[in-house]
Amino acid sequence: MIIIMEPNATKEQIDKVVKKMEEKGFKINLNYGDVMTVIAAIGDKRLMQPESIASFDGVRNVKLIQEPFKMAGRESKQEDTVIEFPNGVKIGGLEKSVIMAGPCSVEEDLDGLLRVAESVKKVGGQFIRGGAFKPRTSPYDFQGMEEKGLEYLAKARETTGLLVVTEVMDSLDVPLVAEYADVLQIGARNMQNFKLLKTVGKYNKPVMLKRGAAATIKEFLLAAEHIMHAGNHQVILCERGIKGIDSSYTRNTLDIAAIPIIKKYSHLPIIADPSHGTGRRYLIEPMSKAALVAGAHGLMIEVQHDPDNAYSDVAQSLNIEQFENMMQELNRLIGRLNYANHC
Amino acid sequence: MIIIMEPNATKEQIDKVVKKMEEKGFKINLNYGDVMTVIAAIGDKRLMQPESIASFDGVRNVKLIQEPFKMAGRESKQEDTVIEFPNGVKIGGLEKSVIMAGPCSVEEDLDGLLRVAESVKKVGGQFIRGGAFKPRTSPYDFQGMEEKGLEYLAKARETTGLLVVTEVMDSLDVPLVAEYADVLQIGARNMQNFKLLKTVGKYNKPVMLKRGAAATIKEFLLAAEHIMHAGNHQVILCERGIKGIDSSYTRNTLDIAAIPIIKKYSHLPIIADPSHGTGRRYLIEPMSKAALVAGAHGLMIEVQHDPDNAYSDVAQSLNIEQFENMMQELNRLIGRLNYANHC
Amino acid sequence: MIIIMEPNATKEQIDKVVKKMEEKGFKINLNYGDVMTVIAAIGDKRLMQPESIASFDGVRNVKLIQEPFKMAGRESKQEDTVIEFPNGVKIGGLEKSVIMAGPCSVEEDLDGLLRVAESVKKVGGQFIRGGAFKPRTSPYDFQGMEEKGLEYLAKARETTGLLVVTEVMDSLDVPLVAEYADVLQIGARNMQNFKLLKTVGKYNKPVMLKRGAAATIKEFLLAAEHIMHAGNHQVILCERGIKGIDSSYTRNTLDIAAIPIIKKYSHLPIIADPSHGTGRRYLIEPMSKAALVAGAHGLMIEVQHDPDNAYSDVAQSLNIEQFENMMQELNRLIGRLNYANHC
Amino acid sequence: MIIIMEPNATKEQIDKVVKKMEEKGFKINLNYGDVMTVIAAIGDKRLMQPESIASFDGVRNVKLIQEPFKMAGRESKQEDTVIEFPNGVKIGGLEKSVIMAGPCSVEEDLDGLLRVAESVKKVGGQFIRGGAFKPRTSPYDFQGMEEKGLEYLAKARETTGLLVVTEVMDSLDVPLVAEYADVLQIGARNMQNFKLLKTVGKYNKPVMLKRGAAATIKEFLLAAEHIMHAGNHQVILCERGIKGIDSSYTRNTLDIAAIPIIKKYSHLPIIADPSHGTGRRYLIEPMSKAALVAGAHGLMIEVQHDPDNAYSDVAQSLNIEQFENMMQELNRLIGRLNYANHC
Repeated sequence: MIIIMEPNATKEQIDKVVKKMEEKGFKINLNYGDVMTVIAAIGDKRLMQPESIASFDGVRNVKLIQEPFKMAGRESKQEDTVIEFPNGVKIGGLEKSVIMAGPCSVEEDLDGLLRVAESVKKVGGQFIRGGAFKPRTSPYDFQGMEEKGLEYLAKARETTGLLVVTEVMDSLDVPLVAEYADVLQIGARNMQNFKLLKTVGKYNKPVMLKRGAAATIKEFLLAAEHIMHAGNHQVILCERGIKGIDSSYTRNTLDIAAIPIIKKYSHLPIIADPSHGTGRRYLIEPMSKAALVAGAHGLMIEVQHDPDNAYSDVAQSLNIEQFENMMQELNRLIGRLNYANHC
Repeated sequence: MIIIMEPNATKEQIDKVVKKMEEKGFKINLNYGDVMTVIAAIGDKRLMQPESIASFDGVRNVKLIQEPFKMAGRESKQEDTVIEFPNGVKIGGLEKSVIMAGPCSVEEDLDGLLRVAESVKKVGGQFIRGGAFKPRTSPYDFQGMEEKGLEYLAKARETTGLLVVTEVMDSLDVPLVAEYADVLQIGARNMQNFKLLKTVGKYNKPVMLKRGAAATIKEFLLAAEHIMHAGNHQVILCERGIKGIDSSYTRNTLDIAAIPIIKKYSHLPIIADPSHGTGRRYLIEPMSKAALVAGAHGLMIEVQHDPDNAYSDVAQSLNIEQFENMMQELNRLIGRLNYANHC
Repeated sequence: MIIIMEPNATKEQIDKVVKKMEEKGFKINLNYGDVMTVIAAIGDKRLMQPESIASFDGVRNVKLIQEPFKMAGRESKQEDTVIEFPNGVKIGGLEKSVIMAGPCSVEEDLDGLLRVAESVKKVGGQFIRGGAFKPRTSPYDFQGMEEKGLEYLAKARETTGLLVVTEVMDSLDVPLVAEYADVLQIGARNMQNFKLLKTVGKYNKPVMLKRGAAATIKEFLLAAEHIMHAGNHQVILCERGIKGIDSSYTRNTLDIAAIPIIKKYSHLPIIADPSHGTGRRYLIEPMSKAALVAGAHGLMIEVQHDPDNAYSDVAQSLNIEQFENMMQELNRLIGRLNYANHC
Repeated sequence: MIIIMEPNATKEQIDKVVKKMEEKGFKINLNYGDVMTVIAAIGDKRLMQPESIASFDGVRNVKLIQEPFKMAGRESKQEDTVIEFPNGVKIGGLEKSVIMAGPCSVEEDLDGLLRVAESVKKVGGQFIRGGAFKPRTSPYDFQGMEEKGLEYLAKARETTGLLVVTEVMDSLDVPLVAEYADVLQIGARNMQNFKLLKTVGKYNKPVMLKRGAAATIKEFLLAAEHIMHAGNHQVILCERGIKGIDSSYTRNTLDIAAIPIIKKYSHLPIIADPSHGTGRRYLIEPMSKAALVAGAHGLMIEVQHDPDNAYSDVAQSLNIEQFENMMQELNRLIGRLNYANHC
């Protein structure tokens, strides 16, 4: 960190700061200037918090100079992380963008789920998504089919060969969900459920981590860092909209710029979820296109067999026909994007 | 819900909506007006989502007319909830505001913790707080002493008679934390960790639920509803600051108005945490006063024996002397507030 | 508006509301239901504010049912507004997306400005932009060259045939700026400077209105409504980023979804400004593409002859070479978009 | 500014930065460390933007070290600014908090206005407020009585001896409004209408500057700086709520912490407007108290003679009886606050 002393700081004040930092094992790079003194201290931030040293007499300001994400950041790993599944599907780097699609939640109607899965397969998608464990703002909303839902998803995989991505909401449920899922999804509301992050971090299975509705880029990458720090480096990030100033016309503000920002600072794959990111059916196609040209490694889209009778997220779900029509457009766009250069 | 039809909606369109709602068990209150038709439908929203009916032809708009929190809201329970502890301490309603204070995290120095506890006791506080399980944005920050930390807190209770409030971060840890704590704290990042909410909802022990950093009032009360719905009605709410547009001068924006708002809509006690709510030492006293006069049932304040050497939240922690000086001021204010009338 | 009475509202309370509304000239559509009474009142909201009637006894809730923008909205005008300039350039509807580019502020170096203008012309742009009057957060920053700057812009138009778009900051300056500009730009900070809106509303010259940094879609369209209400229907909207929760990696959050939202609710053309919208050079290209595929009618981009020595907005300005390289990419994309269908 | 070079920056890269900064007249304080090189450069930021130098090769980061508000900040003026009016009323520093009250807008009913003014006088208030020029989000809302409204306010002053505070919305109107008003109010939407700031800056009359709905503390103080830089140092700041994540229960989020923050960084008086800051009648009293104990130098409160028939801001206006009841409570609190110490 860089410690900037007040112009009128005394030598005693400066010495006290230096002594403290050295005690904590920091390497000091000191400069008594004629205008002001600047101390560069290199060491383990955990041993001496910036705020702590900032409260010493004579200190004007303390600045951090390194990004705090060591494994998720580009500094430690320049090349993009590409996650490869046993069936050959790849996500990340210069690979073609993938499509994850399916209903918000898995419901009683197995046939409906299979019809959606067949549609996803038909249009070239790689993943069937669907919630078996559902985070619901209200306890009076449908809470998910739990293991039964996982079985249905496995059935869809069996029939179509699609990979299964589904949410796990609690550390206790990880073993069960991991038995069925190909990708463990961490929802936006659990982005900072650190016990859950550490638990999935111990599994050898890709994790899709959704950005919290008010998470900064730094908090998002630090959440990924928790998973990686626990041992699992197969993390897929997902931008799904942040809370904005206007909730009249959309559910969230899909932060398209987060895609190229994260690609600059991190080597991890990043996809976008325009369904939750907007909450409006008519916005899914334009925002899907926007995410793709901005460099997203994939899209997650809600499709339901019978949206009018579904329990959740009706306003943002496409029916099968709408989905297939949109995918024609998107496939054209994906086909045109030059994955050797596009970002 | 109120369903407003387009001025030019056909009778067929209207009938289709009515039929659908009746099928779902809604009681219909229909009005064919000469300007437009308005349908009032009373029933279980879960069976027919507003968004779903809004997508029917001829429907202009669908409005909900009831607050969705049944147990946490005033509609079902007019009188304030007052939580009483075995030692006679009460929180809520017209009871005098309580003080919860202590270090951000419990650290190795047991003596320091005991000195803080004695100070809290001395100035009239009722609760010692301290984190044994710590949610940390970065995996490289101190993660807490876990059970050892709980033992230290129990020791502080033994010595001083203070009640213990401490955070539980994962459903798996609830049994352990519940063994030691008098109040189970749910942190802001876990406000929508629904499995955790349901788990603490099964315990007969007061829960302090912190507002998420970007949670609306409605989401906050619905999180409390999850706990109550699982069976535990002893919920204390805590306003601790929301993400704002300016993070240069404070860590969060302490939403003082949330206190009187929540007192209007809910019967549950509500306290404020000016330490996390501002992140700056010099703001704790003015914001504590503001919370009290706005009607808070209590305050949660960070005090550390040796802030300069603490692992976490240094910039927002008072040392013992600063805390005792501030409490002189606050006690004067608490003494003056007319708890029979003040809100 | 729809007035929902409490289930236990008395007949007297209902009658009082109806009487009041009728006095104010509202047409009443009343329904005494057996569950609750719903009153639909059609009339001039100005004569009876919803908040006022909401404060009557027995009223549970008052809901507005119409979008408040009459001229800017699609309800009054279905077909897209296309603005055509004397030189044949068109903006809006299904016309090809236009490019407005140039320096943030016009500075002393006329040659530099002309070189930028030639570059804009060369790559197929239609407008040269540049600020002669500069809104600056600090009084110590460069405040603009005023009339001299306008003369320089006129010189650039003369040389290249490009149209001139430049900001006017105060109602007093409108006559002067209108003498030189082809498009009068209203900056984000002046989006609700209503006197200025009314003043430009009296000119027969296209206005480009930038969205305020914290303006909702409704406030944005109502600002356009002010201009149209004063008589000028040639309004071009510009999305330029809103304040978000994270200002570490971008200056603003470019709200790409606002583009298709506005195209749904308004017939006015909408362009995007990825330079101010992100504040980072490396984000301009991906966000330009995102805006175009989401349906933007044009882009406004900052290009400077010598960014390293410019007075303002250095971090977000491209130099001529960077701009021309990017335009190769963008022209390819614009060429491919199907303007007969793309939204 | 502090320029931090990359650990592997070459001597040539460092020399190039130093040379550039020296050319621009900066005084350089250079430190070749063995870990990294840090350059402290003291000079006029306008001549060399931080972003510009940050784009040089080998530069890791550039940090500013000074607050940018020179006149509004405490650095240049330690003692509080106290504004004194000809009739002896004082605002700022350790003076007792003042009350500004009156209707949102001045309407046809002069008698009503006079009755409000008498009430304000009776309860010890010092200022009558009321809008003659009204900023309105929609062009269809009441736009104000303009000069007639100013005359009414002058009449109220004549009758009661209260000082008049009223909004000026455009630089053109400043001479007219200044003829009638004792305090020129700049509304939140015009906080960055720089021409207007400069114009009022040329008058020898106190200005009350309201914080923009999404303005940071820094932007707020820089707007005050614009006025002061133009010559007028009598600036009263007013916190009136910022846009938050939740607009269901309040119009804005009143940022109480901004009061002690501004008192720390600026010597200017700061008041609060709980009426606009909350938009709800029942919140005005608790938030008024909160603002006062947090150190506000005054309050601005909306009171209307006949709220049910007013044209604007009905939901947040008190009637005379409600106002007088509340003032009893507030006067007790103001009486108790120790103005020699309270902050």
